[in-house]
Amino acid sequence: MEVHTTQCCILMGFLCLLYPWSQVCEWREPEELAALLDLELRENGEPQHQLLQRIRDVAKYSVKTNHPRFFNQLFAGVDYHALTGRFLTEALNTSQYTYEVAPVFVLMEDEVLSKLRSLVGWAEGDGIFCPGGTMSNMYAMNVARYRAFPEVKLKGLWSLPRLAVFTSQQSHYSVMKAAAFQGIGTENVFKVKVDDRGCMIPEDLGETIELAKSQGAVPFFVHATSGTTVQGAFDPLEPIADICDRQGLWMHVDAAWGGSVLFSKEHKHLMRGVERADSVTWNPHKMMLTGLQCSAILLKDTTHLLKHCHSADATYLFQQDKFYDSSLDTGDKSIQCGRKVDCLKLWLMWKAVGSKGLEERVDRAFAHTSKYIENIFFSHFYLTYVFCFCSVEQPLFVNVCFWFIPPSLRGKENSPDYNDRLSKVAPVIKERMMKQGTMMLGYQPQGGRVNFFRMIVISPQLSHQDMTFCLNEIERLGNDL
Amino acid sequence: MEVHTTQCCILMGFLCLLYPWSQVCEWREPEELAALLDLELRENGEPQHQLLQRIRDVAKYSVKTNHPRFFNQLFAGVDYHALTGRFLTEALNTSQYTYEVAPVFVLMEDEVLSKLRSLVGWAEGDGIFCPGGTMSNMYAMNVARYRAFPEVKLKGLWSLPRLAVFTSQQSHYSVMKAAAFQGIGTENVFKVKVDDRGCMIPEDLGETIELAKSQGAVPFFVHATSGTTVQGAFDPLEPIADICDRQGLWMHVDAAWGGSVLFSKEHKHLMRGVERADSVTWNPHKMMLTGLQCSAILLKDTTHLLKHCHSADATYLFQQDKFYDSSLDTGDKSIQCGRKVDCLKLWLMWKAVGSKGLEERVDRAFAHTSKYIENIFFSHFYLTYVFCFCSVEQPLFVNVCFWFIPPSLRGKENSPDYNDRLSKVAPVIKERMMKQGTMMLGYQPQGGRVNFFRMIVISPQLSHQDMTFCLNEIERLGNDL
Repeated sequence: MEVHTTQCCILMGFLCLLYPWSQVCEWREPEELAALLDLELRENGEPQHQLLQRIRDVAKYSVKTNHPRFFNQLFAGVDYHALTGRFLTEALNTSQYTYEVAPVFVLMEDEVLSKLRSLVGWAEGDGIFCPGGTMSNMYAMNVARYRAFPEVKLKGLWSLPRLAVFTSQQSHYSVMKAAAFQGIGTENVFKVKVDDRGCMIPEDLGETIELAKSQGAVPFFVHATSGTTVQGAFDPLEPIADICDRQGLWMHVDAAWGGSVLFSKEHKHLMRGVERADSVTWNPHKMMLTGLQCSAILLKDTTHLLKHCHSADATYLFQQDKFYDSSLDTGDKSIQCGRKVDCLKLWLMWKAVGSKGLEERVDRAFAHTSKYIENIFFSHFYLTYVFCFCSVEQPLFVNVCFWFIPPSLRGKENSPDYNDRLSKVAPVIKERMMKQGTMMLGYQPQGGRVNFFRMIVISPQLSHQDMTFCLNEIERLGNDL
Repeated sequence: MEVHTTQCCILMGFLCLLYPWSQVCEWREPEELAALLDLELRENGEPQHQLLQRIRDVAKYSVKTNHPRFFNQLFAGVDYHALTGRFLTEALNTSQYTYEVAPVFVLMEDEVLSKLRSLVGWAEGDGIFCPGGTMSNMYAMNVARYRAFPEVKLKGLWSLPRLAVFTSQQSHYSVMKAAAFQGIGTENVFKVKVDDRGCMIPEDLGETIELAKSQGAVPFFVHATSGTTVQGAFDPLEPIADICDRQGLWMHVDAAWGGSVLFSKEHKHLMRGVERADSVTWNPHKMMLTGLQCSAILLKDTTHLLKHCHSADATYLFQQDKFYDSSLDTGDKSIQCGRKVDCLKLWLMWKAVGSKGLEERVDRAFAHTSKYIENIFFSHFYLTYVFCFCSVEQPLFVNVCFWFIPPSLRGKENSPDYNDRLSKVAPVIKERMMKQGTMMLGYQPQGGRVNFFRMIVISPQLSHQDMTFCLNEIERLGNDL
């Protein structure tokens, strides 16, 4: 009986996915949606037809992140091979900590990590998959701290001098979360200035390190970014590495977003110097479309720092008298105990399309972005102002950031309330697009710039029509503003 | 084309699951397995028939954790409703941080957490799903630290006195991982003595707190356990709560394993006093069979401590000028940024079988355990010694811990090398069962006890035959020892 129900349910889940949704989302106010979904959990179970309706409702009112016009986050689209890997992962339901319970995945994780490391430029090293880029970044900070002061594991931060972390003004907020969570404190994160494109200014890094020292703090960790969240900027890794070398600091590259450029011969120059880093965060669930969650922390280290730093040697799990090589029990490298299998979806997709297929995916995303920027420039320039790229031919990355200038503000750049009024435009258009469900893209203020749109262009399902639609739609939604 | 491939792949994945595997695992030495799987990732992709073979191989050589004779970890079995929820989660692929991209799941997480809290005994409170119980425990420690010393978020631990954490000798190793990761240091974790059954001795907690204070440390966090990993012991929560009240300490209950007894009217007394805790970790992916990962941290707090402690207010994600109530954007409560949807599988299963069905599952696991212990006692007692339970009629929990005494050691309890020889028995039997693939259960030493088996009895697929088989099989595998 259960199997029969399940077959139906799986089919339904699958059909939901394939259904040609016309809308990206079907907006409902929270109270209305809660009532529609009938979320309450009760004493008794429900009959099969009602469960099938529940599944349909969940799918119907969820955002279709695989819709070609979903540009809202740093993930989008769907790769069916990766999806198959995810289904298989769920069906096999194991935990990635010992060779005994996850023989296939222990070996597979090792192969995938090794391949990712080779793209970084390392013939050897270490690494592990983490539940998201923030966790990967936290691993880097923790291992760096341990390398500099191994006594921290036993004695805590009270045995250490006050530490200092360095990152750019536009790095991801996970640096702050890591510093707070790991007991370092957000005040000990020193922000380094960026240029107009959002790239860290190396000279300012040098000065900021001196400033921290003059305040009695001990620098130990530089967190550079390859692909910032909003502008898609790549910090200049070579000069940053020079400084880290000179100062003896751990260099981490948060390439959660940008790392996938390493697949592309044409674009990998954006991360020139990455091989000089000590650690790299890379999320294939973003540009590579593996599906959430797939994030790797990669280390150049070959001295088992990761294990020494995190191990707790649980005797019930990591027995030393096992009949196989217990170094295959990689779970003690993790700060987690049970750990979801995150490597299969990436491995299966990679097997299916090859490194070449992944390279094409990256190159196609860049090409789509250029096309967008060109369209905005040549067809819509009277309405918009685009920034965050080097040139139309060669955008910096796949984040297209722009303002929509509504009719009432055109030519009024010098009015005193221009910025104030412009800041209210994106939120209104966003509300309208969500309520009509036609597309989704994000907006935010940043530094001195008031609310602007950020469009992320990675979905392989994206067609020329979708691209044209999107720009026309912004005009349509904002033409009375 | 892609869709066609996918349909086949999904079908395959599904068939793998349903295939009546005779063996729990198909053991291969690592080198042999690596060769069989052909793990290498290459420049070019592979044709469809080869991908299908890959999927078959991954399934074939993976451990069948849903096999009725998989007793190796604190998870086992399969619930097809939960599995459907997992497939749907994967198909919808979104991140649980804002109402905008996860409207259904923001509301659903809230409902599921609220229902779990009501089982704890709280009419209100807070909480969030985390990637595993260790992370949930880390959240508790961090929020407790923040409540006691809010300045830690900005200034780090240097602004605080040396802190002290208290937990039992048999608590999960995540307490040590948390203390190390959060900069507190493992030396500042004070271990409290346990009784024979593995339960914390409250009097020793009181004394240990005084000891820590006499060493100049400041107690702030007591980590009690409901369902220890090895013995399945439940710490006495009422007297622990009395001490925490008196001393003004945060009381956390790690019920990752044992929490599900709260579904059962018959067994929830094991957690009497849990409503007096400040926070509770509870992993439905263990006894409730939702599949990895599904772990909740629940808090009694109603002052938004979780948010204040973890927020970083990223302007690109948590805009304050949104057109809907931005308190629905719960992502900033998390230390993660992107966060996998972990609530749907539990919600769908709960809808399907109701609280009553979940209660039956818990009661059935206890009944199976009693049956096992009875079998061991009355049919196999000449071979084994069972411990870790209160009585045959009422086992403490579903961990059955026992030694197998092989023929050569029977009646030799007084030999000087008895323990040494007994310690080598379980590893040999484990090797044999793995290589023959007939079943899987774990072993470990603990405290003064040399290697003993730990059998976890939760799978609803477990039959009387499986139970008999398992005991006979241990005898068969160990009769020449």
